[in-house]
Amino acid sequence: MSSIASMSKEELTLRLAECREKYAAYKAQHLALDMSRGKPGPDQLDISLEVLNCVNARDGFLAGNVDTRNYGILDGTAEAKALFADILGVPADTVIVGGNSSLNMMFDYITQGMVSGICGGKPWITCEQRKFLCPVPGYDRHFAITQRYGFEMIPVPMTEAGPDMDEVERLVQDPAVKGIWCVPMYSNPDGITYSDDTVRRFANLKPAAADFRILWDNAYCVHHLTDTPDTLLNLYNEALKAGNEDLVIQFTSTSKISFPGAGVAAMAASPKNVADIKARMTIQTIGHDKVNMLRHTRYFKNAEGVHAHMKRHAAILRPKFNIVTNTLEARLGQSGIARWHKPNGGYFVSVQLLEGTAAETVRLLKEAGVVLTPAGATYPYGRDPYDRTLRIAPSYPSQEELQTAMDLFCVCAELAALTKLLAK
Amino acid sequence: MSSIASMSKEELTLRLAECREKYAAYKAQHLALDMSRGKPGPDQLDISLEVLNCVNARDGFLAGNVDTRNYGILDGTAEAKALFADILGVPADTVIVGGNSSLNMMFDYITQGMVSGICGGKPWITCEQRKFLCPVPGYDRHFAITQRYGFEMIPVPMTEAGPDMDEVERLVQDPAVKGIWCVPMYSNPDGITYSDDTVRRFANLKPAAADFRILWDNAYCVHHLTDTPDTLLNLYNEALKAGNEDLVIQFTSTSKISFPGAGVAAMAASPKNVADIKARMTIQTIGHDKVNMLRHTRYFKNAEGVHAHMKRHAAILRPKFNIVTNTLEARLGQSGIARWHKPNGGYFVSVQLLEGTAAETVRLLKEAGVVLTPAGATYPYGRDPYDRTLRIAPSYPSQEELQTAMDLFCVCAELAALTKLLAK
Repeated sequence: MSSIASMSKEELTLRLAECREKYAAYKAQHLALDMSRGKPGPDQLDISLEVLNCVNARDGFLAGNVDTRNYGILDGTAEAKALFADILGVPADTVIVGGNSSLNMMFDYITQGMVSGICGGKPWITCEQRKFLCPVPGYDRHFAITQRYGFEMIPVPMTEAGPDMDEVERLVQDPAVKGIWCVPMYSNPDGITYSDDTVRRFANLKPAAADFRILWDNAYCVHHLTDTPDTLLNLYNEALKAGNEDLVIQFTSTSKISFPGAGVAAMAASPKNVADIKARMTIQTIGHDKVNMLRHTRYFKNAEGVHAHMKRHAAILRPKFNIVTNTLEARLGQSGIARWHKPNGGYFVSVQLLEGTAAETVRLLKEAGVVLTPAGATYPYGRDPYDRTLRIAPSYPSQEELQTAMDLFCVCAELAALTKLLAK
Repeated sequence: MSSIASMSKEELTLRLAECREKYAAYKAQHLALDMSRGKPGPDQLDISLEVLNCVNARDGFLAGNVDTRNYGILDGTAEAKALFADILGVPADTVIVGGNSSLNMMFDYITQGMVSGICGGKPWITCEQRKFLCPVPGYDRHFAITQRYGFEMIPVPMTEAGPDMDEVERLVQDPAVKGIWCVPMYSNPDGITYSDDTVRRFANLKPAAADFRILWDNAYCVHHLTDTPDTLLNLYNEALKAGNEDLVIQFTSTSKISFPGAGVAAMAASPKNVADIKARMTIQTIGHDKVNMLRHTRYFKNAEGVHAHMKRHAAILRPKFNIVTNTLEARLGQSGIARWHKPNGGYFVSVQLLEGTAAETVRLLKEAGVVLTPAGATYPYGRDPYDRTLRIAPSYPSQEELQTAMDLFCVCAELAALTKLLAK
């Protein structure tokens, strides 16, 4: 469509009628598609099958001299620590390897802050006005953790370079602000990678609270879609230079490298933080699943092995992302009712629609059989004050399904926009 | 040795000299043995190899219609829930399947109590005088959790029928008492199974605190050593009869069925408790490792499959337990300085020595190269007020090593006892 701003009321009305007709035709198809979560498609799962086969009686169960089947090794096998250190670009002794979920490691860390305090600080639960910074749009599961624990979540707008650092630097002067959620590379949902300047400003942050932490969820650190990937400055190295390394808690996992349900998660942090975290873990568990660590270290070996493997994921995902952005461009590119960032990696495209039309667009899609992440989900408390941001997750549907869903998405977005404009 | 009570000072002195000579001979052997933890031996790990092989590309990855490799299913596959329900004798919808560690599920549950409260109750952290009942001797890792969270741990003596229920019933009248740790079958470390009467009294407990919970760690529910196993009354059924089902939180795992490092853990509780726990879990994780659940459900199928498998463990463990109890009987049976329960299952034998000699016995063993669980470990805060209880874990050493270690154990126990008696 052409720019809405240039259209007369009559043209808009005509266009609305056309849209309604198209929409009715889609409804008649009785679609059943899901673009709600960043879930790899079945074809992606199949490229990692060898991960499941490489631990067996023939090749044994030793990681170094550790029988991975038995008890022990609180923070992961040396091989698994080395693999994640290689991926994150940090020393191996800063790494703690966990179970199958980095989200669980984040939950446990925030929980530890709440009930035991961080590095000798007071339990956050005793800080009645506790606050957490939430770049928006962001990841709903991050926000759900700090919501459960009664933090006041303060939205910080995302820019093309990452969170608005003027805002972050201003807000951390409040000692009640205990941390910030970050997805620094191919951010969820915008697909933006933080600029070098943003990373340096994070590394040099001077928060008022000694127990303030940057929760650096590097979920998509190797999840490139193109041969010209984004690059992310190494926050831990920058923080070390600034003598600020205790500020940083990093997370990543193989959920979208091997298997979402059966991967390995890890965190990395300064020696002081690692000691603090391990003091909790030694009470919490005897150790995580080392056989699964062995599967991953045997198969991937090192970061290079991971990068090679990720190219196979990219080959599957790239066409899907192209369907999303090409369709948006072709159908809504000139309309003035939608903006988006074309990401070089990650799992999402986030679309900024006309204010006040995101929820209606989701409702229309749902009525026609396509499930999207709920409008508002990328904001704390599920409330998008502008009702305009939607997250598209293209990985799970087939290309054909995705094309249909995206065509319909554009129809619904336009329908919602025209209806709103004409109601004025 | 004959009864110490019947010996003259001269006989004791002579005996002590003999013991010292034997001890010196052992020291000269430079042993290096570990009887400290209930860790299966390598031969036990080998009998479960097929668990690791039964999930592969040929047989697929579906549990029902769920691709276990992908995200989803918060509380475990239907198959895994059914398996644990069968093992525990509870309805499948009371089961939550977790990761590789039931200890972690217990830690998470107590943590949830601390920070969020149980079923709408106040967070336990706000109860400054919070208390927890600890049957003694008991499991050090249980006690470590409640110690970390600042509970006053109140010891309750174990009897041959389980915890002293008069004491339990008296103590739960205090609303600050929030729970009790129980290992009801083949208890750690005594190897005692709670009597039917004890289970019924637990089921009918009327604690003052609405958020009091029985943490029923049924770790050894299928871990029989003999063909005449103990039987444990079903607490959940008894609690249902009493309208008291919200009192019970059960735990178990396959750690000592398949692999300690790579098994599957589960908990079971009333619908009200399950809803409370899942409300936390839905924030904590997208789901635990379903591929590993599939390995276990494919291999074991049901409780019958587990029972058949456990007979293979018993065949390996029974001779080891016989070495422990036969050696104790032969060397110390008439001495009057040691008492123990000969267990029909589980992983431990606990020995009551002469008061004030447990720590010295451990010290002597260590000096001769044999590591035992520290004296006191089976008591809250690691303090055995009588310094008399030691826990023997026979599973890991070979039979030959175990025989040597037990011979030495008896020498050390006697040496410590004679030294103490003669010092009076």
